[in-house]
Amino acid sequence: MDRQILLTPGPTPIPPETLKMESLPIIHHRTKEFMDLFNELHENLQYLFQTKNKVYSLASSGTGAMECAVANLVSPGDKVIAVACGVFGERWIKILTAFSANVIPLRSEWGAQVKPEELEKVLKENPDVKTVFSTHTDTSTAVLCDIKKYAEITAKTKAIIVVDSISGLGGQELYMDDWHLDAVVSASQKGLMSAPGLGFISVSPKAWGLVQESKSPRFYWDLRAFEKVFATGQTPFTPPVSLLRATNESLKMIRKKTLKNVWQETKELAQFTREVGSSLGLKMFPKDPCEILTSFKVPEGLDGQKIVKQIVEKYNISLAGGQDKLKGKVVRIAHMGYIQKADIQKGMKALAETLSSGVF
Amino acid sequence: MDRQILLTPGPTPIPPETLKMESLPIIHHRTKEFMDLFNELHENLQYLFQTKNKVYSLASSGTGAMECAVANLVSPGDKVIAVACGVFGERWIKILTAFSANVIPLRSEWGAQVKPEELEKVLKENPDVKTVFSTHTDTSTAVLCDIKKYAEITAKTKAIIVVDSISGLGGQELYMDDWHLDAVVSASQKGLMSAPGLGFISVSPKAWGLVQESKSPRFYWDLRAFEKVFATGQTPFTPPVSLLRATNESLKMIRKKTLKNVWQETKELAQFTREVGSSLGLKMFPKDPCEILTSFKVPEGLDGQKIVKQIVEKYNISLAGGQDKLKGKVVRIAHMGYIQKADIQKGMKALAETLSSGVF
Repeated sequence: MDRQILLTPGPTPIPPETLKMESLPIIHHRTKEFMDLFNELHENLQYLFQTKNKVYSLASSGTGAMECAVANLVSPGDKVIAVACGVFGERWIKILTAFSANVIPLRSEWGAQVKPEELEKVLKENPDVKTVFSTHTDTSTAVLCDIKKYAEITAKTKAIIVVDSISGLGGQELYMDDWHLDAVVSASQKGLMSAPGLGFISVSPKAWGLVQESKSPRFYWDLRAFEKVFATGQTPFTPPVSLLRATNESLKMIRKKTLKNVWQETKELAQFTREVGSSLGLKMFPKDPCEILTSFKVPEGLDGQKIVKQIVEKYNISLAGGQDKLKGKVVRIAHMGYIQKADIQKGMKALAETLSSGVF
Repeated sequence: MDRQILLTPGPTPIPPETLKMESLPIIHHRTKEFMDLFNELHENLQYLFQTKNKVYSLASSGTGAMECAVANLVSPGDKVIAVACGVFGERWIKILTAFSANVIPLRSEWGAQVKPEELEKVLKENPDVKTVFSTHTDTSTAVLCDIKKYAEITAKTKAIIVVDSISGLGGQELYMDDWHLDAVVSASQKGLMSAPGLGFISVSPKAWGLVQESKSPRFYWDLRAFEKVFATGQTPFTPPVSLLRATNESLKMIRKKTLKNVWQETKELAQFTREVGSSLGLKMFPKDPCEILTSFKVPEGLDGQKIVKQIVEKYNISLAGGQDKLKGKVVRIAHMGYIQKADIQKGMKALAETLSSGVF
């Protein structure tokens, strides 16, 4: 069988240069060699986040980075708003609830974003809100949230804004500093074109005050411990050296190409995918679509899960079905990171053939 | 310069077969291919832990697995005993304190273990203790704790025993089920001969009751979420596929060789290292030594940190110095995992030459 083509929204394919870095002999992390890697990676992460703030690398998946944000920024009983327009917005609500925050969920109808005016209204009604949590791009609904606007609105209050850009970063425009985002979390396996296993978090000076105050229990996630050893080019606990080295390699490629060009290419791939879909009579699911993936409605009477299953079995191409209440109702094709146009063409061809095969 | 020789107690060298697995193209984790890997790895982990309990894989370092144990097993205010005979025993105390446990620290003089009788006494004096935490082998002091005895003593009470075998597992005898250990945590980068970035935790049926009851906030660490999807060959959050694949490869090697043979080889390497050290006039630091590494006292008037620095610069061989209050006072040589006798010979030769060079 040919190599598997991954068109899923994470993990995404990894460039061969990056894979190669993963398989180099391990180095000890209390060495100059590691410190040099740490510093180079950090500069590349700052470029990726478009920030002058520090970006901390965690040995965790993206959800771990979300939990790190909550544990460091939220104390039990804190009033917070969680903007949710899909599964990953709901994840904020779940983590915040687990940490006994007083959560105001601000949900959109799936497929749409939460309108900035709504956030403004709820923030006005609740001047004691300490933090606003939002997703940047929710891969479950393929919705883009206008985090720039959310941040503008939040910046007028005493609250801070925390953004999950696990899937967005690298593919979708984001300027942490210029947009006044107070904390951004991400992970290695999507737009960053590396293997899963690394989480990232960056925190603004305004948010750092909450880190100092947070009464949530934490040791592994404690950003104060990361800060303490940062200047020495170290992490407080054994870092996943091979993953850091690999991710640095991918970030070097992004930096060489420039973020603007990566964003532009992602846009073009999105447009291409949608044009092909449209020619097949497929309608987009989201009203407020992001660029890193496309979610097509499955034609009436067909089962999206079966379509995806058949495509992986017959063509060895992995598309994504729907999650949660969208199960069976959508088919999702990612065009982020190292996903190539030729592979999207193959994926869309397989989708077309499967839809017209009449098996359903 | 030649390849760096790693004789540090983690990360340890990685076999080439394992490194190769890290650089294979990424696969999606919601596939049969991943489920097969998950199930095979799990069987190998059960062999390694010598348990019929489930072993959960975490995207985290070993400290993350420790935090996972505390978050799942300890509620704020719970009375617990933390046995500490080095830096990593102290880490239990720090995590437990962060999670507002009522901690009774049971410290040994560094170099010795906590005597089982002491644990017995404190447990008798405190019949309301819910959990005993201990390290198996503390690499900072090179001490072996008699966790088998600790567990025998604990099993006579209502308490459970939780063991950090991050450095011990794979190198040092451990039978989770036969010894009645209620929870064991470990990590990928030491005896398991893989890259850092994976944590593991196994929990006995007796300990599972506490998982259900724990009031500590957790979402990412919540073992109930891992349990919920376990039967489907999945983890609740994106797993670090490349690290899991690599670790499975190393575990296959251990299984092929058998644990008993690995333990025996580790013992023989320890003996060899100590004989060479003795012939150089070096004294062992610990009174209760483990087998996975040797800690030599640095001769009076010399600085262990400088010795280690000089050896890495001149020979490209990484030994470890002392941590915390042992800084400068000991030199540590690991003989766990994939560390080869030929490399230990080179390391000891470099140590001998450096000690007699008179630079100090």
